[in-house]
Amino acid sequence: MQIRIGYELAFEVPRPTPMQLMLYVHPDQAGALRHPEKIVVEPAVAVEDFIDAFGNRAARILAPAGALRIRYDNEIRDEGAADASFEGLSLTPVHEMPPECWRFLLASRYCEVDRLSAIAWELFGATPESWERVQAVVSWVHANVTFGYQFARWTKSACDVYIERQGVCRDFQHLAITFLRALNIPARYTTGFLGDIGVPPSASAGDFSAWAEAYLDGAWYPIDARHNQRRIGRVVMARGRDAVDVALTTSFGAATLTSFTVWTDELPAVAA
Amino acid sequence: MQIRIGYELAFEVPRPTPMQLMLYVHPDQAGALRHPEKIVVEPAVAVEDFIDAFGNRAARILAPAGALRIRYDNEIRDEGAADASFEGLSLTPVHEMPPECWRFLLASRYCEVDRLSAIAWELFGATPESWERVQAVVSWVHANVTFGYQFARWTKSACDVYIERQGVCRDFQHLAITFLRALNIPARYTTGFLGDIGVPPSASAGDFSAWAEAYLDGAWYPIDARHNQRRIGRVVMARGRDAVDVALTTSFGAATLTSFTVWTDELPAVAA
Amino acid sequence: MQIRIGYELAFEVPRPTPMQLMLYVHPDQAGALRHPEKIVVEPAVAVEDFIDAFGNRAARILAPAGALRIRYDNEIRDEGAADASFEGLSLTPVHEMPPECWRFLLASRYCEVDRLSAIAWELFGATPESWERVQAVVSWVHANVTFGYQFARWTKSACDVYIERQGVCRDFQHLAITFLRALNIPARYTTGFLGDIGVPPSASAGDFSAWAEAYLDGAWYPIDARHNQRRIGRVVMARGRDAVDVALTTSFGAATLTSFTVWTDELPAVAA
Amino acid sequence: MQIRIGYELAFEVPRPTPMQLMLYVHPDQAGALRHPEKIVVEPAVAVEDFIDAFGNRAARILAPAGALRIRYDNEIRDEGAADASFEGLSLTPVHEMPPECWRFLLASRYCEVDRLSAIAWELFGATPESWERVQAVVSWVHANVTFGYQFARWTKSACDVYIERQGVCRDFQHLAITFLRALNIPARYTTGFLGDIGVPPSASAGDFSAWAEAYLDGAWYPIDARHNQRRIGRVVMARGRDAVDVALTTSFGAATLTSFTVWTDELPAVAA
Repeated sequence: MQIRIGYELAFEVPRPTPMQLMLYVHPDQAGALRHPEKIVVEPAVAVEDFIDAFGNRAARILAPAGALRIRYDNEIRDEGAADASFEGLSLTPVHEMPPECWRFLLASRYCEVDRLSAIAWELFGATPESWERVQAVVSWVHANVTFGYQFARWTKSACDVYIERQGVCRDFQHLAITFLRALNIPARYTTGFLGDIGVPPSASAGDFSAWAEAYLDGAWYPIDARHNQRRIGRVVMARGRDAVDVALTTSFGAATLTSFTVWTDELPAVAA
Repeated sequence: MQIRIGYELAFEVPRPTPMQLMLYVHPDQAGALRHPEKIVVEPAVAVEDFIDAFGNRAARILAPAGALRIRYDNEIRDEGAADASFEGLSLTPVHEMPPECWRFLLASRYCEVDRLSAIAWELFGATPESWERVQAVVSWVHANVTFGYQFARWTKSACDVYIERQGVCRDFQHLAITFLRALNIPARYTTGFLGDIGVPPSASAGDFSAWAEAYLDGAWYPIDARHNQRRIGRVVMARGRDAVDVALTTSFGAATLTSFTVWTDELPAVAA
Repeated sequence: MQIRIGYELAFEVPRPTPMQLMLYVHPDQAGALRHPEKIVVEPAVAVEDFIDAFGNRAARILAPAGALRIRYDNEIRDEGAADASFEGLSLTPVHEMPPECWRFLLASRYCEVDRLSAIAWELFGATPESWERVQAVVSWVHANVTFGYQFARWTKSACDVYIERQGVCRDFQHLAITFLRALNIPARYTTGFLGDIGVPPSASAGDFSAWAEAYLDGAWYPIDARHNQRRIGRVVMARGRDAVDVALTTSFGAATLTSFTVWTDELPAVAA
Repeated sequence: MQIRIGYELAFEVPRPTPMQLMLYVHPDQAGALRHPEKIVVEPAVAVEDFIDAFGNRAARILAPAGALRIRYDNEIRDEGAADASFEGLSLTPVHEMPPECWRFLLASRYCEVDRLSAIAWELFGATPESWERVQAVVSWVHANVTFGYQFARWTKSACDVYIERQGVCRDFQHLAITFLRALNIPARYTTGFLGDIGVPPSASAGDFSAWAEAYLDGAWYPIDARHNQRRIGRVVMARGRDAVDVALTTSFGAATLTSFTVWTDELPAVAA
């Protein structure tokens, strides 16, 4: 399966502003891209690439004052398989994990493990100490949080989501991640492209998506408290502790998003 | 100058519990140590070392059930000079910083840059865009927060400190770090040994200390909103975004600290 | 001047639910009404009136399951004068206020005086201890908070507004009230009708309005951090500590607001 | 049974400061006092009494600059019976309660009913809709919160207690009250004298106590999530929505408590 992916973002920038862009496909999946990656910025400015502390490919620019456009278009090859299943797997004991897993057990800006720890054990302490505990967390968040774009705000943390029970994609994932970490299961936040492949077309406009990954039996598996189903065609852009680490764009100064288009479409198969 | 440093910590652990220890001297300063580093754990268990994502030397153990003791003793050579002064320095523009500085501009668990950004600009936006802005932040926090061990709690963030105006070492640093990041000045959290060298002896028992570092004119400088003075003999153990990254010990399960001794003493000079 | 006032609210109620209605004109202004007050409820149920602890006229019903409509229509005579000015007035010393003022100095659900006290004194402690301090608070909130219906949420308190700097009517008033109380100036929350009389017509649909009252020189004066101007034709419905006390409707069980119309229109003068 | 009650409080007041004192026995119990009530203030200042909006007898003074002492000593007759039991009682339907109960269903400063409502129904929604639901709330809070004087802070709300699971008397009661209100059971906060009558003597010094009252089957019953047992000899001083309404002393300006003695002792029976 080939998936066409891309975006066009427009900003209004009042004065020259440094920006960090997490807008490449993750190096783990970049080998499946049809074309070399290129973030096109208008007006043309230097785009400096770097690999961040989590292994993501990032870019940074100094956006000039005025209108700014950022575009990307590509195709990626995908197996067309649903997310790998973690059913039946055991949990890795903490002391048997590689050390690099441990940072995904700790609290982060939007995932206050310290604050939600007692609650996590009350809600999930009686579940089997296996993949079923992971599933219980994902299902609970899916069932108890109401989705709505109007519920988004930048300061919203997992604890807020637990209290308010409302949110967008990222809020669902933050709460699930926090519960998992409190239960000593490593969990990390993931952003990327996720189209309506194999599911009924969504009424809302295309958008980037946020999901998460949990560590079971020595490997990372996608989890998604927003949809609570195994999906086809996830294209990872970045991974981190939470939305802070992998914000698609981070501006060090004012920058107003004025328009926003994202595409993630399965391409028709071409006869050989 | 030679400084004797060390600690002895005791825990009661109800069941086997993995622990992360940030209890070595930082690799940057380890060359000045007199003896090879050794964390002695009783009962004897494997101590596995690793370098974390911030370049700190860390260790991990699987603590057995029962009483646990962790000891360390060493000497370190120090120039005996006060903290490097940043007086007169300019601030590095964000787009001229190396990319690895940028993560120290972002929000983290205890440093909610998003929440305190407007306030930071109200308080400090009129200060000169230079080292004086850094000093203004440090002085403000020092003057407006009251120190007291009874004000410590694990869930306390910079925003809580700003509202409550009370805290311990780490709280002072979290608030200063958050303001600096909001002002686009990289700031990181630091833990280590800091004795009463060149200052009147403190009435309270020895303890580890927390301070911070700010990035000016292409380099990192120690800052300390708790003491607001240049001190002699800081021995860095670990650096990170905030106290989450560099907690001296992190237990993945219950572990009760039952006693605690830390020493940081200037040794008498020996005649040649 | 005659003002036509009224509303029609529709709810969907899944099961019989007690509701409190603060939907009468306040007894202080009810003498200027043209018709006796009547809240019409469909389907017809008993409407039990009572005077609450703040002197407001309230009603309560047991809403049956199904669709519920609540209607009211009336006319009120108004002087047509702008809000009384408090310019030039002195502040009443706390110990000279009648005791019933004191409860409007204390913290309440949405007005955490304890949390914002240090900040209030930092922001306003240097203003003259007179009406100018009241005006400074109102002007600051007006200038520093951005209005938007999308920023409303039921859990939002003054402290949230101070941090997030976004909100609806009630949020502006909560923050101003909290600052005033912290400065030892009694302030209370007010709901009522406020039409576009003497100001350009608003683009948005009719709605109830929230404003506040501050106590200066022995009397209560309207203040309005949302508009920061003296307005014509305020019709008070209820007063209390904050929005908790005077919510237009409070349901003890689920009740979904399905439609909502409010009118507050100056009637054309009739020739004698 | 005769109980001797009283207190001596000392403050240091930097400048003349108005203070509200909720330091009388509640009018409901005052008929059982042996002597007329008198709050003795040194230096002598006018003590102005008033009845507050909750029916409590309160006093206010203008404390002069300097050292301030407040004393009270009395005896009260008590039946010597344990708190009235609510076992077996039914819950009053909301629409059958007198209107004055309804304000004790609403959110207040320290009791964020809005924020803890979903959680209350998750924890207690499956309990029988009777006195057993009240008991379940009290027992849960008693079992899940750890007592400690070092956990006190003035800004701590029920939501904080739920997250942190630590607190003093007032924190236990705030959390229980909030859960009850969320479950549509009126609950109010109570302060008063409570000695060690019929229980082993407490190691800690005498103090005022905070408990609560819940409304079942048409009447108010004492509940106490701190002790979770029926006690003898409660002497009510004041009732309100939460600790804001009935703070023993509220200062409108700085006033430092410098010493504090409270006595509540059963007197030996005297032979006739």
